[in-house]
Amino acid sequence: MSSHKLGRGVAVVGAGMSKFGVFREQDSRDLFVDAFLSMQDSVDKGLDPNDIETIFIGNYSSDLFEHQGQIAPIMADWVGLTPRPAARIEDACASGGVALRQGIMAIASGLYDIALVGGVEKMSNLPIADVTDALATAGDTLYETPAGFTFPGFYAAMATAYMHRYGMMPEALMAVAIKSHENGALNAKAQFNASIGDIMASKRARAAQKGRPVPDWADEMAFLHDERANPTIAWPLRLFDCSPVSDGAAAVLLVSEELARRFTDDPLYIIGSGQASDRALHDRSDLTAIGAARKASHDAYAMAGVTPQDIKAAEVHDCFTIAEIIASEDLGFFAPGHGFEAAEEGITARNGPTPINTSGGLKAKGHPVGASGVAQVVEVWAQMRGEAGERQVARDVDLALTHNVGGTGQSCAVHIFERR
Amino acid sequence: MSSHKLGRGVAVVGAGMSKFGVFREQDSRDLFVDAFLSMQDSVDKGLDPNDIETIFIGNYSSDLFEHQGQIAPIMADWVGLTPRPAARIEDACASGGVALRQGIMAIASGLYDIALVGGVEKMSNLPIADVTDALATAGDTLYETPAGFTFPGFYAAMATAYMHRYGMMPEALMAVAIKSHENGALNAKAQFNASIGDIMASKRARAAQKGRPVPDWADEMAFLHDERANPTIAWPLRLFDCSPVSDGAAAVLLVSEELARRFTDDPLYIIGSGQASDRALHDRSDLTAIGAARKASHDAYAMAGVTPQDIKAAEVHDCFTIAEIIASEDLGFFAPGHGFEAAEEGITARNGPTPINTSGGLKAKGHPVGASGVAQVVEVWAQMRGEAGERQVARDVDLALTHNVGGTGQSCAVHIFERR
Repeated sequence: MSSHKLGRGVAVVGAGMSKFGVFREQDSRDLFVDAFLSMQDSVDKGLDPNDIETIFIGNYSSDLFEHQGQIAPIMADWVGLTPRPAARIEDACASGGVALRQGIMAIASGLYDIALVGGVEKMSNLPIADVTDALATAGDTLYETPAGFTFPGFYAAMATAYMHRYGMMPEALMAVAIKSHENGALNAKAQFNASIGDIMASKRARAAQKGRPVPDWADEMAFLHDERANPTIAWPLRLFDCSPVSDGAAAVLLVSEELARRFTDDPLYIIGSGQASDRALHDRSDLTAIGAARKASHDAYAMAGVTPQDIKAAEVHDCFTIAEIIASEDLGFFAPGHGFEAAEEGITARNGPTPINTSGGLKAKGHPVGASGVAQVVEVWAQMRGEAGERQVARDVDLALTHNVGGTGQSCAVHIFERR
Repeated sequence: MSSHKLGRGVAVVGAGMSKFGVFREQDSRDLFVDAFLSMQDSVDKGLDPNDIETIFIGNYSSDLFEHQGQIAPIMADWVGLTPRPAARIEDACASGGVALRQGIMAIASGLYDIALVGGVEKMSNLPIADVTDALATAGDTLYETPAGFTFPGFYAAMATAYMHRYGMMPEALMAVAIKSHENGALNAKAQFNASIGDIMASKRARAAQKGRPVPDWADEMAFLHDERANPTIAWPLRLFDCSPVSDGAAAVLLVSEELARRFTDDPLYIIGSGQASDRALHDRSDLTAIGAARKASHDAYAMAGVTPQDIKAAEVHDCFTIAEIIASEDLGFFAPGHGFEAAEEGITARNGPTPINTSGGLKAKGHPVGASGVAQVVEVWAQMRGEAGERQVARDVDLALTHNVGGTGQSCAVHIFERR
């Protein structure tokens, strides 16, 4: 099936996002309007919203988070797109990436020329225990959650298996967190717009202000080893290994290849798309890789006719630091068991040979789950067009990739973008 | 946009469903397996499940009904389709019809040749007040449910507005219920596999058995006017005006037109597809029509190049009896304000000139919300191929239509099928 080709090409001609964070006074509607306007601003030659023909919304569970079903037509209404077709796409945390794929197929099908793909999640309304519970339903609620698993536990099991097999030590996870926060510090839309160094300084200042002993961490690693500063959530994962609870939205504008230059002289072309599913974690033989990511990326590379080594920048699904390491192997950037070394050696740093999560990733940018897969495209849009400001990677990004995982890997969508 | 055409044709080559009803011991997985096997049985020349390339699952809220998110890869797993791409599509009660549309676009896009479209809902686990509440989230939970609206209330408001404008009396609604139960009595998969006459007989028998006075209703209308037998839920809607709480699943197999005869010598071709969105009910100027249904059917007719008068049988979204009457107008079968007369005059009866809901409809067949839009195709499959047994309509059904509404009409998907 991976040998099949799209009936016609699809281009990205706009991409934007709301700020990610915790916004008590904003709901999904407000956040999505922010993302839509940001996307509209990004369209070089302007966008008349009336030209949008159809809408796909990635959303994990407005049902549980906001007690609101049928969110897609509401999002369409709030950005003035009634009566266009509006569908919600759900594959847990991969909802955004899978929604992107629906937008691509809608255009390739010939039915539409111009499609809006959005993603949104408003998570912070609920008490944190209810958020954890809502997220846990992305596991298997017959076999996994009754055994006590929540998401930090799932990924802790994967991290432990990985450490056991490959000899990774917790410092590799910490290296990922330090790198992601360094990038997030340069991203004004990030929930944690601060490096670990910034966070240390702020904690020292607060201690001094309150007349408490000022911590004297020798460096960032010392900070991350401090159980008070970085408590264990589910061993070996600590606080700074986990993406936060976030509110946010993102939106991208897809058009048929022929129409692209009506909107911009610098479009991105989607040359590869892959998606796969897998059994729930309890039913898999190997916890050190995500099969759906391997399959989805294999199909995306085959469609694009490129190899992992051709990719100049990637936004991967780092819901936990271990997930970024495993992703870097599933995507073929590094051999199995070598992703952690790459992270420690700075190979995935912003100006390393294989930049990963220049946006700050889910870890620092934030993870409003249904929005994350779409927000990855927003970063690719900025990096490929040279608009990423202080966090712009040095070399020309002519090929980039997004990797969006649902749950523990029951779903994965991978997309490859080309700038010509 | 309605002038756009699919890049290539799409055919239905199999369709099946579980029994609809209340099944305490079955969850979504069991129901979907039943539907899948029923679909597989329907494929004339046989189906190797390994040939299925991708899966779309219509589901309204496994989140709220079963506390299970990310249901699509679980459904794929339980019918042996891991690692195929699996996406859940949600537009409230239109989830199934919108999932069908995704399957069509996936094939028309060139990316796939063979797609499984399923729908499933397991609603009966929760206490009835929680079911009502879960369904109410398909309204607008900022503006409507805080005002006290649940779904019987929404449709009661529409019925009242319709009665006021067009002079309809409650007997027209009762005529729809009588007709739907007559059809459901001939459908072994229906939740209410009984005519109103059957139900009256069974109530009389129970009264006699318990030594209570045996009711002597003169006819079905008298039964439906009896407040004990048919209590008011939200005036003017009574119990028999409302579709039930249901568990069930349905599945259809879509293939590219070129492949159709590999599976059957008698495929159905999907020649029209339309989808539209609308604002929530509180924000509409007219309660007597559903704008999204008018737009979706307009687009579907335009794509198919046919008129409402060409349609030989239709499955429409009768979540309440009033919804069927409004649908029959929105779809252009009758002029505004004349659908209720058509129902009273038997024009929509199984062997009338415009047969509507020969399956029993959502009213008698049952309404497991995410499954309903897909199950409509199962009835169309049977009627068009002359396999509907006792409820087979007399004349040749060469063109048929399905109409699937989400909420009060925030979403609608309409499809037109041709047998050549």
